Amino acid sequence: MPFLENAWYMAAWADEIKPGEMLHRKLLNRPIVFFRRSDMQLAALHDLCPHRFVPLHLGRVKGDAIECGYHGLQFDCSGRCVANPHSDTIPSAARVKSYVIEEKDGIAWIWMGEPSLADRTRLPDFSRLHSAPPSAGSRGYLRTGCNYKLIADNVMDLSHADFVHSDSVGGGAFTRARPQVAEHGDEVHITWECKHDSAPPAYDRHMPEPGQPVHFRTVVHWQAPAIMHLDITITPQNDPQSEGLRTDNAHIATPETETTSHYFYWLTRRFCVDDEEINSRRQAIMHNAFSNEDEPMLRAQQQAMETDDLFALKPVLLPSDAGAVRARRKLEQMIRDEQAARRTQTPT
Amino acid sequence: MPFLENAWYMAAWADEIKPGEMLHRKLLNRPIVFFRRSDMQLAALHDLCPHRFVPLHLGRVKGDAIECGYHGLQFDCSGRCVANPHSDTIPSAARVKSYVIEEKDGIAWIWMGEPSLADRTRLPDFSRLHSAPPSAGSRGYLRTGCNYKLIADNVMDLSHADFVHSDSVGGGAFTRARPQVAEHGDEVHITWECKHDSAPPAYDRHMPEPGQPVHFRTVVHWQAPAIMHLDITITPQNDPQSEGLRTDNAHIATPETETTSHYFYWLTRRFCVDDEEINSRRQAIMHNAFSNEDEPMLRAQQQAMETDDLFALKPVLLPSDAGAVRARRKLEQMIRDEQAARRTQTPT
Amino acid sequence: MPFLENAWYMAAWADEIKPGEMLHRKLLNRPIVFFRRSDMQLAALHDLCPHRFVPLHLGRVKGDAIECGYHGLQFDCSGRCVANPHSDTIPSAARVKSYVIEEKDGIAWIWMGEPSLADRTRLPDFSRLHSAPPSAGSRGYLRTGCNYKLIADNVMDLSHADFVHSDSVGGGAFTRARPQVAEHGDEVHITWECKHDSAPPAYDRHMPEPGQPVHFRTVVHWQAPAIMHLDITITPQNDPQSEGLRTDNAHIATPETETTSHYFYWLTRRFCVDDEEINSRRQAIMHNAFSNEDEPMLRAQQQAMETDDLFALKPVLLPSDAGAVRARRKLEQMIRDEQAARRTQTPT
Repeated sequence: MPFLENAWYMAAWADEIKPGEMLHRKLLNRPIVFFRRSDMQLAALHDLCPHRFVPLHLGRVKGDAIECGYHGLQFDCSGRCVANPHSDTIPSAARVKSYVIEEKDGIAWIWMGEPSLADRTRLPDFSRLHSAPPSAGSRGYLRTGCNYKLIADNVMDLSHADFVHSDSVGGGAFTRARPQVAEHGDEVHITWECKHDSAPPAYDRHMPEPGQPVHFRTVVHWQAPAIMHLDITITPQNDPQSEGLRTDNAHIATPETETTSHYFYWLTRRFCVDDEEINSRRQAIMHNAFSNEDEPMLRAQQQAMETDDLFALKPVLLPSDAGAVRARRKLEQMIRDEQAARRTQTPT
Repeated sequence: MPFLENAWYMAAWADEIKPGEMLHRKLLNRPIVFFRRSDMQLAALHDLCPHRFVPLHLGRVKGDAIECGYHGLQFDCSGRCVANPHSDTIPSAARVKSYVIEEKDGIAWIWMGEPSLADRTRLPDFSRLHSAPPSAGSRGYLRTGCNYKLIADNVMDLSHADFVHSDSVGGGAFTRARPQVAEHGDEVHITWECKHDSAPPAYDRHMPEPGQPVHFRTVVHWQAPAIMHLDITITPQNDPQSEGLRTDNAHIATPETETTSHYFYWLTRRFCVDDEEINSRRQAIMHNAFSNEDEPMLRAQQQAMETDDLFALKPVLLPSDAGAVRARRKLEQMIRDEQAARRTQTPT
Repeated sequence: MPFLENAWYMAAWADEIKPGEMLHRKLLNRPIVFFRRSDMQLAALHDLCPHRFVPLHLGRVKGDAIECGYHGLQFDCSGRCVANPHSDTIPSAARVKSYVIEEKDGIAWIWMGEPSLADRTRLPDFSRLHSAPPSAGSRGYLRTGCNYKLIADNVMDLSHADFVHSDSVGGGAFTRARPQVAEHGDEVHITWECKHDSAPPAYDRHMPEPGQPVHFRTVVHWQAPAIMHLDITITPQNDPQSEGLRTDNAHIATPETETTSHYFYWLTRRFCVDDEEINSRRQAIMHNAFSNEDEPMLRAQQQAMETDDLFALKPVLLPSDAGAVRARRKLEQMIRDEQAARRTQTPT
């Protein structure tokens, strides 16, 4: 299935792109090189020199441009060749495709489609996570051996936690919750809520009285292509929800290829915000969960499926799939619409 | 070339499938998961959950069923879904294909074709090997990088031992023997016999007088798909054969894919049956022969052939190929017959 | 693109093929085994036994023949089967293709096409390098992850040294030189010459006064398929050229497959010819340049190009590409001519 092109994709954590250095990453099957101009503005170019087709990231940053490591042509952030040491002229064909790239909330967002359609007002909003103090937030990156839609399916059906992460963020409550799904514009929200239940082990230790019954509520906000915000509240059963433990987490997947993805995760919390030890413990738990529990499962799933078209395989769907299925359907419709518009634009 | 489906294949040594655990193995390109019910009966299921297509072996055994590790659906040995924690009902489509599996002579035999055709009276008979005391038998398993028919060719033409295993079970006698081939029903037998010859090094050390001339006789019984029994007798030249050294060995290959195989070998002997040291020495010799001498040769052969259709390559055949060729022809006829019957059954 | 077949290719350094041993190497996608007869003459056979299709190099040298390691057939240097231990007769079809192979200047040259067209008078001439004393010459071999034409492109456009090897043999002079290209029969020559310039770091240390301006001249002689001779002279600006530092180097690439190559390099010099230390220092510099600087760049280029047809990708060409482009055009014409002649010869 084609990728959605006219969309903001997370390319990197903004601080992965350091002044004077290049970061290179394949997104949607396209090699891209990232760097910063001397004024710190981000730039993203197709990672290929039009002279001899070597990756530009094998070269070096020179002021506001990058120099090809093979024969020294230089390209600025617009992709224009600005230096040719082999001649007094610059061939007009010496250009590299550039991408629209924006820095917001500590994230480098890239627009992979038609530049004139890039709408900065629709950049995803993770300001609530970005405002958390360093001691109440941690971030990670994982390259995963599966299609990005499987990562979205995984996060949209949190009942998997009860089986895959039963020692940490699972425990049975998600499976007992019977989720509710709703659409809000282009977003899909799924809410897992249960009362008089037990808190997952990773949260129970932070309750006033470990083991006490809780009101456990998780809302996942999905937006295309695979950008998810989790808002989790765990409250002792008889307390007002405003006094519960609350965390905001982001799970964002960007396709590398049809069968591999970049997985960015961000965990923040609104309790014990100054406690560095909680921070590092949560980070360790989540890193273990993603790397050693989710990733092998998703990779095995990918290998068995041999396609990114879940519905073609006629899965036996369960009520817990409702959110994941709604998000997949919405994404597929957006891709079909985009493909149809493209066919209309191209004269035949 | 398709695989023969209506046949018993060796899936595993029976004790590889332990109570409370799963064994997973790909056979004939199909992923299969094996487990034991609480009454120790074997079960074999297609290793894929029909919900989200993850391998079932990533889950756990729960009583007489296995639970999917991703979202907890449970399947019994018939492949029926017997538990769904996400709903009060079980979707009727939630089923997994099950296979007929039988335990006999310490071997787990699986029927890969139409279950109603599985004929337990035709299960291969390795009772003679199974009756050997533990100190007179050893078994092994090797995953090999070649098609199963190349393993059968290798065992059916034992003259290779004189070149590939010249320090152990070869020595020249096979090549000098000029073998005899005969068919007995669905079996092909090849007999290598030479008199007044020298014993291979691995046997010579056990003769009353090492270096003395012997009568050396090996009969290989082949049955489809690649199940072989070797009956070897080495007798001092003037003694009655009943007083010679006698061994019964099994070499059994089961396709994993078109280009890889499961190779099971079993060595028993009827001399010095209580001598553990002979046992471990023979095991070491054979393990070395299979792993370091046969396997690299067969893997290189496979890579050079690039097909499993030997005859299409127009090999220069020798008299020593007679048994291997007869077995290949018989197997190919059985496969053609099976494919033809299948076409007849399918209305067009 | 097909390979040029009627051409001499470097198969190996002659001393890689040792008496009593076999060397095996894939050339132009064909597996070839090399050995020496007892009179030290070289032999080259298709590396595949026509009996069971195992590589002959898994066997052993027996006098003037090689014995297959699987069942013992023997083949002489003409490819004729000369021993069959399984029968009193030798099947007439038991033959292996043999190749014309010649030893000259310490190099084993093989003719990959029609044997009757092999013209020994056109063997490449590296006698000038072969006459250098051992202390003034060093040789190397590298298997590279790219098509052989990319290696020729690399050597024909030495301006890459200023960017890829700036610490050793580059430094800027090549890029400033503005090269001249000429054809001499089937050869392409490219000359990089600059006066009043600085010597590359690897040469500057050997000048009478390091840092002084020099006259730097490099002539690269290319012949098909990818055989290159570099003649480099560096002279203090006001001295006669005959008193400069002079080196003769060979860079020879032979295709292994469409995407991998054998790279042979040979460095000789005509200054300080008895200084072993200079020799080992030059060898270390060049080994590092090829392995750690050129090879990763060429491999990345190959992966990005996904074809061996440079012109199909519409590269933005620069004046410094002139020699490489001329050589590619000439080679492509030779291949087209050869393919056309082949079609004429084959009756339809």
